[in-house]
Amino acid sequence: MAEKGPITSPLAEAERDITAKSLQATLVDLVDLHLVAKQAHWNVVGSDFRSVHLQLDELVSNAREFADSVAERAATIGVSPDARAGTVAESSGVPEFDSGWRQDHDVIAAIVETLGKLIRRLRARIDETDKTDLVTQDLLISIAAKLEEAHWMWQAKLSGS
Amino acid sequence: MAEKGPITSPLAEAERDITAKSLQATLVDLVDLHLVAKQAHWNVVGSDFRSVHLQLDELVSNAREFADSVAERAATIGVSPDARAGTVAESSGVPEFDSGWRQDHDVIAAIVETLGKLIRRLRARIDETDKTDLVTQDLLISIAAKLEEAHWMWQAKLSGS
Amino acid sequence: MAEKGPITSPLAEAERDITAKSLQATLVDLVDLHLVAKQAHWNVVGSDFRSVHLQLDELVSNAREFADSVAERAATIGVSPDARAGTVAESSGVPEFDSGWRQDHDVIAAIVETLGKLIRRLRARIDETDKTDLVTQDLLISIAAKLEEAHWMWQAKLSGS
Amino acid sequence: MAEKGPITSPLAEAERDITAKSLQATLVDLVDLHLVAKQAHWNVVGSDFRSVHLQLDELVSNAREFADSVAERAATIGVSPDARAGTVAESSGVPEFDSGWRQDHDVIAAIVETLGKLIRRLRARIDETDKTDLVTQDLLISIAAKLEEAHWMWQAKLSGS
Amino acid sequence: MAEKGPITSPLAEAERDITAKSLQATLVDLVDLHLVAKQAHWNVVGSDFRSVHLQLDELVSNAREFADSVAERAATIGVSPDARAGTVAESSGVPEFDSGWRQDHDVIAAIVETLGKLIRRLRARIDETDKTDLVTQDLLISIAAKLEEAHWMWQAKLSGS
Amino acid sequence: MAEKGPITSPLAEAERDITAKSLQATLVDLVDLHLVAKQAHWNVVGSDFRSVHLQLDELVSNAREFADSVAERAATIGVSPDARAGTVAESSGVPEFDSGWRQDHDVIAAIVETLGKLIRRLRARIDETDKTDLVTQDLLISIAAKLEEAHWMWQAKLSGS
Amino acid sequence: MAEKGPITSPLAEAERDITAKSLQATLVDLVDLHLVAKQAHWNVVGSDFRSVHLQLDELVSNAREFADSVAERAATIGVSPDARAGTVAESSGVPEFDSGWRQDHDVIAAIVETLGKLIRRLRARIDETDKTDLVTQDLLISIAAKLEEAHWMWQAKLSGS
Amino acid sequence: MAEKGPITSPLAEAERDITAKSLQATLVDLVDLHLVAKQAHWNVVGSDFRSVHLQLDELVSNAREFADSVAERAATIGVSPDARAGTVAESSGVPEFDSGWRQDHDVIAAIVETLGKLIRRLRARIDETDKTDLVTQDLLISIAAKLEEAHWMWQAKLSGS
Amino acid sequence: MAEKGPITSPLAEAERDITAKSLQATLVDLVDLHLVAKQAHWNVVGSDFRSVHLQLDELVSNAREFADSVAERAATIGVSPDARAGTVAESSGVPEFDSGWRQDHDVIAAIVETLGKLIRRLRARIDETDKTDLVTQDLLISIAAKLEEAHWMWQAKLSGS
Amino acid sequence: MAEKGPITSPLAEAERDITAKSLQATLVDLVDLHLVAKQAHWNVVGSDFRSVHLQLDELVSNAREFADSVAERAATIGVSPDARAGTVAESSGVPEFDSGWRQDHDVIAAIVETLGKLIRRLRARIDETDKTDLVTQDLLISIAAKLEEAHWMWQAKLSGS
Amino acid sequence: MAEKGPITSPLAEAERDITAKSLQATLVDLVDLHLVAKQAHWNVVGSDFRSVHLQLDELVSNAREFADSVAERAATIGVSPDARAGTVAESSGVPEFDSGWRQDHDVIAAIVETLGKLIRRLRARIDETDKTDLVTQDLLISIAAKLEEAHWMWQAKLSGS
Amino acid sequence: MAEKGPITSPLAEAERDITAKSLQATLVDLVDLHLVAKQAHWNVVGSDFRSVHLQLDELVSNAREFADSVAERAATIGVSPDARAGTVAESSGVPEFDSGWRQDHDVIAAIVETLGKLIRRLRARIDETDKTDLVTQDLLISIAAKLEEAHWMWQAKLSGS
Repeated sequence: MAEKGPITSPLAEAERDITAKSLQATLVDLVDLHLVAKQAHWNVVGSDFRSVHLQLDELVSNAREFADSVAERAATIGVSPDARAGTVAESSGVPEFDSGWRQDHDVIAAIVETLGKLIRRLRARIDETDKTDLVTQDLLISIAAKLEEAHWMWQAKLSGS
Repeated sequence: MAEKGPITSPLAEAERDITAKSLQATLVDLVDLHLVAKQAHWNVVGSDFRSVHLQLDELVSNAREFADSVAERAATIGVSPDARAGTVAESSGVPEFDSGWRQDHDVIAAIVETLGKLIRRLRARIDETDKTDLVTQDLLISIAAKLEEAHWMWQAKLSGS
Repeated sequence: MAEKGPITSPLAEAERDITAKSLQATLVDLVDLHLVAKQAHWNVVGSDFRSVHLQLDELVSNAREFADSVAERAATIGVSPDARAGTVAESSGVPEFDSGWRQDHDVIAAIVETLGKLIRRLRARIDETDKTDLVTQDLLISIAAKLEEAHWMWQAKLSGS
Repeated sequence: MAEKGPITSPLAEAERDITAKSLQATLVDLVDLHLVAKQAHWNVVGSDFRSVHLQLDELVSNAREFADSVAERAATIGVSPDARAGTVAESSGVPEFDSGWRQDHDVIAAIVETLGKLIRRLRARIDETDKTDLVTQDLLISIAAKLEEAHWMWQAKLSGS
Repeated sequence: MAEKGPITSPLAEAERDITAKSLQATLVDLVDLHLVAKQAHWNVVGSDFRSVHLQLDELVSNAREFADSVAERAATIGVSPDARAGTVAESSGVPEFDSGWRQDHDVIAAIVETLGKLIRRLRARIDETDKTDLVTQDLLISIAAKLEEAHWMWQAKLSGS
Repeated sequence: MAEKGPITSPLAEAERDITAKSLQATLVDLVDLHLVAKQAHWNVVGSDFRSVHLQLDELVSNAREFADSVAERAATIGVSPDARAGTVAESSGVPEFDSGWRQDHDVIAAIVETLGKLIRRLRARIDETDKTDLVTQDLLISIAAKLEEAHWMWQAKLSGS
Repeated sequence: MAEKGPITSPLAEAERDITAKSLQATLVDLVDLHLVAKQAHWNVVGSDFRSVHLQLDELVSNAREFADSVAERAATIGVSPDARAGTVAESSGVPEFDSGWRQDHDVIAAIVETLGKLIRRLRARIDETDKTDLVTQDLLISIAAKLEEAHWMWQAKLSGS
Repeated sequence: MAEKGPITSPLAEAERDITAKSLQATLVDLVDLHLVAKQAHWNVVGSDFRSVHLQLDELVSNAREFADSVAERAATIGVSPDARAGTVAESSGVPEFDSGWRQDHDVIAAIVETLGKLIRRLRARIDETDKTDLVTQDLLISIAAKLEEAHWMWQAKLSGS
Repeated sequence: MAEKGPITSPLAEAERDITAKSLQATLVDLVDLHLVAKQAHWNVVGSDFRSVHLQLDELVSNAREFADSVAERAATIGVSPDARAGTVAESSGVPEFDSGWRQDHDVIAAIVETLGKLIRRLRARIDETDKTDLVTQDLLISIAAKLEEAHWMWQAKLSGS
Repeated sequence: MAEKGPITSPLAEAERDITAKSLQATLVDLVDLHLVAKQAHWNVVGSDFRSVHLQLDELVSNAREFADSVAERAATIGVSPDARAGTVAESSGVPEFDSGWRQDHDVIAAIVETLGKLIRRLRARIDETDKTDLVTQDLLISIAAKLEEAHWMWQAKLSGS
Repeated sequence: MAEKGPITSPLAEAERDITAKSLQATLVDLVDLHLVAKQAHWNVVGSDFRSVHLQLDELVSNAREFADSVAERAATIGVSPDARAGTVAESSGVPEFDSGWRQDHDVIAAIVETLGKLIRRLRARIDETDKTDLVTQDLLISIAAKLEEAHWMWQAKLSGS
Repeated sequence: MAEKGPITSPLAEAERDITAKSLQATLVDLVDLHLVAKQAHWNVVGSDFRSVHLQLDELVSNAREFADSVAERAATIGVSPDARAGTVAESSGVPEFDSGWRQDHDVIAAIVETLGKLIRRLRARIDETDKTDLVTQDLLISIAAKLEEAHWMWQAKLSGS
């Protein structure tokens, strides 16, 4: 990563490299989140099918939009982003999601676990970029805000009754 | 694939299995096309950057929409679709796309090659489903129409001057 | 049906008559599907009320739109369509739907059964029109695609938990 | 009708029963009006075809929207509405509409007659509900306003020349 | 209330005072309904979270719009409306809603109880304004229509299974 | 007025005639209100020009829409409406509005006076139609609601400071 | 007309006065055209009712928009416009339009005659303003373009069969 | 036609040439249909002017959209389309349409004849492409569906009275 | 051209005939411009394909809209317009455009030449109509404004590099 | 506040508690701001009525939207928000707003004072959350930006003349 | 100005040079008008703040749109436009606008003076271009129409009270 | 700058003055960026004309929107902003942009240089406002994000080929 490329960085080299690592890791997480949320969207069954099916598409939509912003931010600071299938399969922080039809409550639990893990990773990168690039940090904060909100809403379905 | 699941198929078992194979392979191709087109969208450089960048997003949009239709058709005929990152990385028919910044004419050539290969695979599946499920065939025909149109437009950029 | 009328058919007489029978039967099925889905929309009760109530209106909307296309296709091939209440009550393929308040899971099961039956009837007509009118067949295929998709989504609610 | 059900009525039992009868009868009239208007929409021929065809679809659209409001009002006052094909065929106040192709002026005359009859029935129910439920009465008044407007417009076509 | 103010009333003094009391009481009920529905919107948990969360926002939206119409009607008849927090806390007819996280079925039951009570109060005011101001009565009827519809929909979720 | 015409009335002759008089008088008042409000819209000057100019156009828009509804209601009950310039000039209840440039506060005072007078006339007609045609009465109530609201807003500008 | 007022004219006094006369006369013609077109819109009967009724509303809409532009142009050149009912009744160039129900072909003939007369008057004013104010002339040309287009369309209905 | 060009065909040479002939002939028919429909749109006169004028523009709009799809399909299969004025004038299948003002019923009869002829030509090409390119066939079927629908609607105007 | 027809002209005979010649010639030029621009839109190849393809569609859209306005202006002044394929092929002022695939820079040069020629012809007609019909002249000026703007933009692509 | 609840916090306990206090206090301030702004919206009188009435509704709209974001952020960090009428009445930082009709300049002064006080409170919480939760801080900054902008605009009305 | 450039002019050299001077001077005036109107938009204070602030943004919007049209017209006739900050500062006809906060009535007076001056300059250019380029003249007339309208509206605020 | 004015600042005097300097300098940079980008938009020529022309308008649009936000933020913290032509000409940080027609690659290089310089200036101000006003800093960060994104896209066009 961070090889000498055609795009001048607004950041010094050290800041650029640290920031780029955060962005690349976030990009892979978000692309995989989107693939897993779509997988769940198609394979969920159970009495809560319709509600979960629709709620997953909102997550897909957020993940796609954020992945695009993150990748374009990497390009903006002069570092080529990589979200090809092989890269995502190898370096994503998203937990394994089983193939085949999935019961609605299992899907909800898997999404809650996935979001919890991605949020922890993201918060660490918010701290790292505090010293290297406030513009990138601001983007990561806005992603955390939305993923944490989603985390609340998916958790809320698991409570009680 | 095609294990006994919770969704009744409108097709007999043999037709269902052949159709499902076509759908699963098309799904993986389309999801990978979308990932590669996004990768190119972010990494393209050169004097034609803006035009290629925008044209790639139209391809991304088509690929996403068709992937969703194909996966939901698989579910509809009673077979669980699979488009997780690992599955895509392993079974896609999309040619390798190099990482890093990519010159505009290289990107165009790569997209032309990719579309050409996917169209050949898709046409074979249109033939296969002619006997097993006309509803699926109709969906594959509409995908071929759009991918072939894109193939023309990307090729047109390679001609002459 | 198929009496000499004011609209010239693009089909020969034999093809016109076979095609018209398929269209008339499909028209009645779709109008009755729409009436039953509205009936269920108003009378469903139970914890899943809101989700079922909304999902039924999507079915109503599809049924209305397809019924209109089917009836206008009949007129187009020169045969007067008939979807008056008495005709629907007598010749529809939709199973009896009980009056009064209906529990949500009963409604779901009834819709799944209804869609399954209508799809089987529709697939037979797709085969019949393959030899008589490809334009009509294409319309019936698009209806089957949508009804089968709905069938999957309603079945998914019945699975497991 | 008006059996003990799961929805509490805002009305006392006597008022509820009288109101419910008005709503049920109006519901059936409106659903049948919509079926007949669609039937005419498809089967009309004559030099005025296009104008009548379009004007009928406005009537269909009004009839559908009002039928929905009326049925939901019945549910709201605790009484299950019934607009299944058989019920409509048996209890509708809409005059018989002949099958087959119909000349434009015959269609206009039939719609004028139908609307005239439905308006008279509706005005009687506005009187009945004046003492039992002002909310329902207000709904019936708004339906009468629209059907009477339509009655004027269809009559206007029959005048003179 | 009803002091001599800068806005001339279209009503005589006695009618104005009775009408104004109905409007002021309705205003407070609706503002509090909106606050309670928002409170529930944020604090609901349980497997039905998403559906209840969304359905509550429709109630919030209706309550806000009606409160505005009612307050502006009071101003229109020359009487200053009052919906400040203290006034609402003291004079609202909405039952106490407990603080903290609330299970979905408890929220549904609370909303059903609240709507039932507000509807009874509203119907009494429809009777009162029948003699004092038909314009105000018409507004109250339209509010009753919508709150009663909501009452049906929330009750439907409590039925059976 | 109320001569034997081509449109059948839903009302008996006596009710029709009384109702028609109310509608015809309201029509003339509203058309003249619209002409006067436009006249003021063009001729107002003063520091409050922009606010008054815009607020007058809202009044114009309401007056036009209501005039159309009232005239079409007259036609609907079988009586030809008349809002030609001469008829309006002769029979309108709108007070004289002076020609030439008009100062903003004078315009406001004139509009307040005009609305006050029209509302009184309208309220009398609401009483008259209570016995002859509830559909017409409902329309007049909705017009009164809007004109009285406008009356409040124009009066509010005259208060104090 | 053209007294010393609060708005400075961009034109010299002589040009202003000539231009203002053209604008005032055009304003009155257009407001009366709009009143007559609405009168016809409500009172037309006959087999062509719907088409004429709709076409008249397009004329109303054009007349209203042009009247507003013309009146505001008069104000812009410093002369107070006047389109009060009495002024319109006295000084309009629109031919008398009979009251009561009107047969469709009579309405068409009356509109053709009215437009013909207004166009002749308008063309004379285009010549007059050629020397006094090109901005006003440009506005009158755009009005003539639209009224002449309408004249063609209404005449077309009178031709042949 | 079908010379070696810059765009690779998804079809083998023989299939490409047959398919291209169908597309080129359809393109010319549709462009000429659009020119004739516009010609009629401008030159029609008679009592039915407005209805025919509007209905012709819908035909123009469909013809334009289909011509574009057909030409782009030709390019997509690697064959240059040709719809220049000279080519259209020489090779179109549309019957001669007389110049000058045309009476409404003559226009309707001419359009009915034109559509009838184009549909017959189109149906032959649907058969030809069944063996050469299902993607092209699917496009031709969708065009036939729309032209046949238009054929019904124009014929309907010729019936009876 | 300009035979005695069913539409009365707002112009005297001599002015009508001169104006009509300008309109007829402009109509043919614009229809042919639209056909040539579509031809280029489909057949262009080269690295600038996408930009040229899109820019041509804007030209098509302008040409279509102006052709319609010009033809309807001819009808409005009482002269039947003619834009049938044969008429266009014979009398158009658009230079020959070669068939087959066309390189992007050749297309640009051809469009620049075509626009240049059409603008010269149009400017002559603006002069001619200055004495015969200012309404038509105003339309021709607005067309010249848009075609000259397009001429600049297409020329700009030919400059330098 | 901050009891052990069903939603896992992304924050450690101490950070969560401090952050939650800031959010709860901001929520109450914003809900009360919205109630007071609506109260003023209905009760303002004076020559500036229309402008103040409209400007207040923009404030209402902002306050509602921010209150929702703040309450959902509290839920997101695992703490139940409370904005019931009693809680707002007791703990809001909004100054007392007198009941009854209010003169326009008094309303403006009251809004300026209210916004000034809420901004000071909000700025303190921006400092507090700098160490506990950057996501919450970012939300509070965006609220401060909008309230301070409103503060400027309301102050601007108090200046000079 | 008017050096030999890459864009061919539709005008002869002398006409081009005179026209270009008018366009360049108008461009600078409009860009400066937009900068001054924005300056006033931000710096106005006083009781009329909101109304003036909004009205200024409409002026900004018109000035921006016209400046763009004027500059593109210059390019279209083959002359490079210049609206860089330095050029505007040196050659604008807009009167000096003082820095710092500005009282509302001072802003209104300044805008009235500015518009008056720009209109006089513009009218002179309308005369100059009458002989050189009617297309440019038509554009200048449309700008004068809008600026004169604005002049009226800003003057109206200065009248009386 | 920062004289005692009519708007109270939410900041202490020292913080206000430092923040205001950053805002004023950013305002001038952005207004000049917008003028230069428009200048380039009109004067660019070359084969890449259309793409550069469109991309510049996106930059204009961003610059305008940000300039407005920055100026209003200055007013909000109590300091009068200044973006008059003279001020911009004297104090802008945007490099000189040559007059006359400009080749596309020169324009691209100039925009890249300009954005690079403005971004460096902006990043310094983000550091300065970190201690004085987080609300202003957040605004500057959002501007940097967008300008840096634009910088990447314009640089990408300069790479390779």
